[in-house]
Amino acid sequence: MLKKYSLIQAPMSGAQDADLTIAVCKAGEIGSLPAAMLSMPLLKLELKRIKEAVGKAPFNVNFFAHQEKIITDQQREEWNNTLKPYFDELGIDIKSIPKDSGRNPFNEEALQVIKEFRPPIVSFHFGLPEEELIKEVKNTGAQIWASATTIDEAKYLEAKGVDAIIAQGYEAGGHRGIFLNFDLSQQMGTFSLLPNIVATVKCPVIAAGGIATPTTLQAAFKLGASAVQIGTAFLVADEAKIRPEYKNALLDPSIKHTVITNLFSGGYARGLLNRFINELGPINKKALPFPDAGAATGVLKSAAEKTGNNDFSSFWAGQGVNLIKAGKAIDIINYLKSNGFE
Amino acid sequence: MLKKYSLIQAPMSGAQDADLTIAVCKAGEIGSLPAAMLSMPLLKLELKRIKEAVGKAPFNVNFFAHQEKIITDQQREEWNNTLKPYFDELGIDIKSIPKDSGRNPFNEEALQVIKEFRPPIVSFHFGLPEEELIKEVKNTGAQIWASATTIDEAKYLEAKGVDAIIAQGYEAGGHRGIFLNFDLSQQMGTFSLLPNIVATVKCPVIAAGGIATPTTLQAAFKLGASAVQIGTAFLVADEAKIRPEYKNALLDPSIKHTVITNLFSGGYARGLLNRFINELGPINKKALPFPDAGAATGVLKSAAEKTGNNDFSSFWAGQGVNLIKAGKAIDIINYLKSNGFE
Repeated sequence: MLKKYSLIQAPMSGAQDADLTIAVCKAGEIGSLPAAMLSMPLLKLELKRIKEAVGKAPFNVNFFAHQEKIITDQQREEWNNTLKPYFDELGIDIKSIPKDSGRNPFNEEALQVIKEFRPPIVSFHFGLPEEELIKEVKNTGAQIWASATTIDEAKYLEAKGVDAIIAQGYEAGGHRGIFLNFDLSQQMGTFSLLPNIVATVKCPVIAAGGIATPTTLQAAFKLGASAVQIGTAFLVADEAKIRPEYKNALLDPSIKHTVITNLFSGGYARGLLNRFINELGPINKKALPFPDAGAATGVLKSAAEKTGNNDFSSFWAGQGVNLIKAGKAIDIINYLKSNGFE
Repeated sequence: MLKKYSLIQAPMSGAQDADLTIAVCKAGEIGSLPAAMLSMPLLKLELKRIKEAVGKAPFNVNFFAHQEKIITDQQREEWNNTLKPYFDELGIDIKSIPKDSGRNPFNEEALQVIKEFRPPIVSFHFGLPEEELIKEVKNTGAQIWASATTIDEAKYLEAKGVDAIIAQGYEAGGHRGIFLNFDLSQQMGTFSLLPNIVATVKCPVIAAGGIATPTTLQAAFKLGASAVQIGTAFLVADEAKIRPEYKNALLDPSIKHTVITNLFSGGYARGLLNRFINELGPINKKALPFPDAGAATGVLKSAAEKTGNNDFSSFWAGQGVNLIKAGKAIDIINYLKSNGFE
């Protein structure tokens, strides 16, 4: 299922639907569907679409596996107060913030969908669900993959019996899969994380973080990767579903800076520096734990975007962003593979 | 002077003298002498030793080029108060802190030594000295190298006419060469910094940060490096001059964690996590700007080490530390080159 030199399109919640998954699979590589922000009916619809389009080709469905935390009223109030000036600026009532951030961890309900559609690969971000759920996913015949951002996390995942570990380097765009040690200062660059994890575990290691060009793809294999997972480069695929403003920001020819911030969701995620991050971040201790901070920032983002204001939009991107090229998914794949693998 | 595939031993102040420089040069690669913490008489002595030992072989002398900052009495008092409990614990009078941290930027006096000894390569960390001094160094026939930790810093250095740029990735051990934008959150991993700088500048780019094994060396060349600079792997060379406790900590077989901290000198530097960092860092806003914080921590370190206590010792190391092997410098070089360069 995971072949040597497989190229995996990273699941990117909010930035894609099954169209990208299908395009990548049709190009002979492994497409991913991000399921964490989909309702169960929508997830079923997308899985049906993928299966009809790609037949027996391997594809990956990704879920979150974060621990849900209890938020006190005081925490909620402090976060709302931190954001209050922006709600005022945009003329939104802070009482309009919903309780739910719309990002659920993998659960019994999602398991039923997996049982029904039997995707070849199920991957998890932010750790793993409880043992019983993992066992049931395995029983469907699916391979299980999960992300590690430290050597310790890789050892943990190996002990839990995953089929492959995604080594997510510091360079990676979007949410970091951190789940054991939330000390950001100990996060490792791809150049060190990857060979360290390869030296530590026996299962295949998938490289992620900074792979955006033919030479970075080759370098990942040189560092011991069995396969590569690529996100940012696929954000600008024709089949991705990002807003034109986001796409333009990613492709802007000036030097773009990315930072890891917890402002948008409460979880650490890398994206383009913007006003919101400059003013309150990148790391703000008042931000509610993942995913709860996102309930309020989601309201800000929607309201602002309606007026063409992107100050509150999370333009996720990895450190390879200055090197990416837009095009059809198949053209991006052919470009990335154009130097071969060694 | 800088050949394709050159291997450069990184200058490591406080961890080596000319013995390591000489051993690396004799093995056919480029040794470096860290000059920033040497008195002028000692610098002359070391340069004499190197020239006598290596003849016409290229070697590198490294200087700091930091901007000296004015420290107010209040800043000094706040830093001293932060450290007071440790001075009390060790039974040292806080009044024993010297004014001078012993780390000077390149100056007229050092220039005279360069003019006298004419080292083939002069490299700078923390930016560049003023134009007039650079010009005079160039006039001696020396190549000038300098470190960049961001794309912007690389562009700056190219505009100043350096002969080669050292792309110092986030993984690198010891002091980061940051000099334009001190926002640590924008620092880039080797895997992204290196190809980004290679794509941006025309001069040769030397990769640094995470190169510790034959495959990481190959990966650096794959990412476009003209040469590689290696620090941590040479810390455990027989010819390095680190304390046995430091060496043991680097070679400890358990998983070691490194973080970037400003505690020891006020400058950002990566080293092994220890008690001092856990309690006050890794980043402490009270730390005086580089290098002034080091005056007080130097006193703590010396006093503690005398009693076999390493709680205040800076055990600098890069993220590749878990992969290094001790031995003679020549054996380390042969190991690193054992897979070839491609």
